[in-house]
Amino acid sequence: MADVAGVTGEQLKSYIERIERLEEEKKALAEDVKEVYAEAKGNGFDTKVMRKLISLRKMNASDRAEQEELLDLYKTAIGMA
Amino acid sequence: MADVAGVTGEQLKSYIERIERLEEEKKALAEDVKEVYAEAKGNGFDTKVMRKLISLRKMNASDRAEQEELLDLYKTAIGMA
Amino acid sequence: MADVAGVTGEQLKSYIERIERLEEEKKALAEDVKEVYAEAKGNGFDTKVMRKLISLRKMNASDRAEQEELLDLYKTAIGMA
Amino acid sequence: MADVAGVTGEQLKSYIERIERLEEEKKALAEDVKEVYAEAKGNGFDTKVMRKLISLRKMNASDRAEQEELLDLYKTAIGMA
Repeated sequence: MADVAGVTGEQLKSYIERIERLEEEKKALAEDVKEVYAEAKGNGFDTKVMRKLISLRKMNASDRAEQEELLDLYKTAIGMA
Repeated sequence: MADVAGVTGEQLKSYIERIERLEEEKKALAEDVKEVYAEAKGNGFDTKVMRKLISLRKMNASDRAEQEELLDLYKTAIGMA
Repeated sequence: MADVAGVTGEQLKSYIERIERLEEEKKALAEDVKEVYAEAKGNGFDTKVMRKLISLRKMNASDRAEQEELLDLYKTAIGMA
Repeated sequence: MADVAGVTGEQLKSYIERIERLEEEKKALAEDVKEVYAEAKGNGFDTKVMRKLISLRKMNASDRAEQEELLDLYKTAIGMA
């Protein structure tokens, strides 16, 4: 590996390769997620609603309840309920 | 429009509708961009390279030259040039 | 403008500039959307809930009702309601 | 876990939890990637150029050479070289 104008090729390559390995692992996990959704869909589950459920589960119960209440309030206020 | 628990339906609806109109316009512009790329492609231009060119044009000339030089340096340092 | 290896500089530049103008307009609209949300926030509205409301409004009423019903069903099924 | 209107809570919850675990792992890997870039930056490397290098390394050498050549051609054609 060349040392070019102060750039240590060895060090740079090790950073690059570490990042590439991590990105590979991330890509594999994204594939796994897709497979689980496909399996659930195959068993009749609605994946869009599953995604909503998962995003709701990221919130704590009180924030979730507060947001759902406010959403209902806004719907009513604009005549959408 | 209801005033519900202090939420002014009129005001909320006007914000919502303004945002929806702006999002519509944005969507139309995105369609226009897609059409221009499709037209260019139809005339034999490589749209991936066009996108790179457009992103390079966002940089000023000296930053661009500096980045290209550093990229060459890094390529050489890791034996990729 | 040069004609280089069959690439008509004039034609390429016109595509590039059309795309850049459209992207500029899109950026300006995105700024406008941000401003409306900021104005709404300044008047006490919850912008996260507004975004949810806007995404719900993109669905037709029956799809929306069906999705909300299924979400409640899933919540109950996993003991989350 | 309830069985509600034919929705098997047990099965749904296992899909949800599998997805959440995978998403957690993905998030951790994304953090690791950020840490490697931060470490590289701390050692004087330009992370923007590193990202460009990584995206170039995803292409095979001949595609990369072809794209770089076409980019230079387009730059010259619109008087940007």
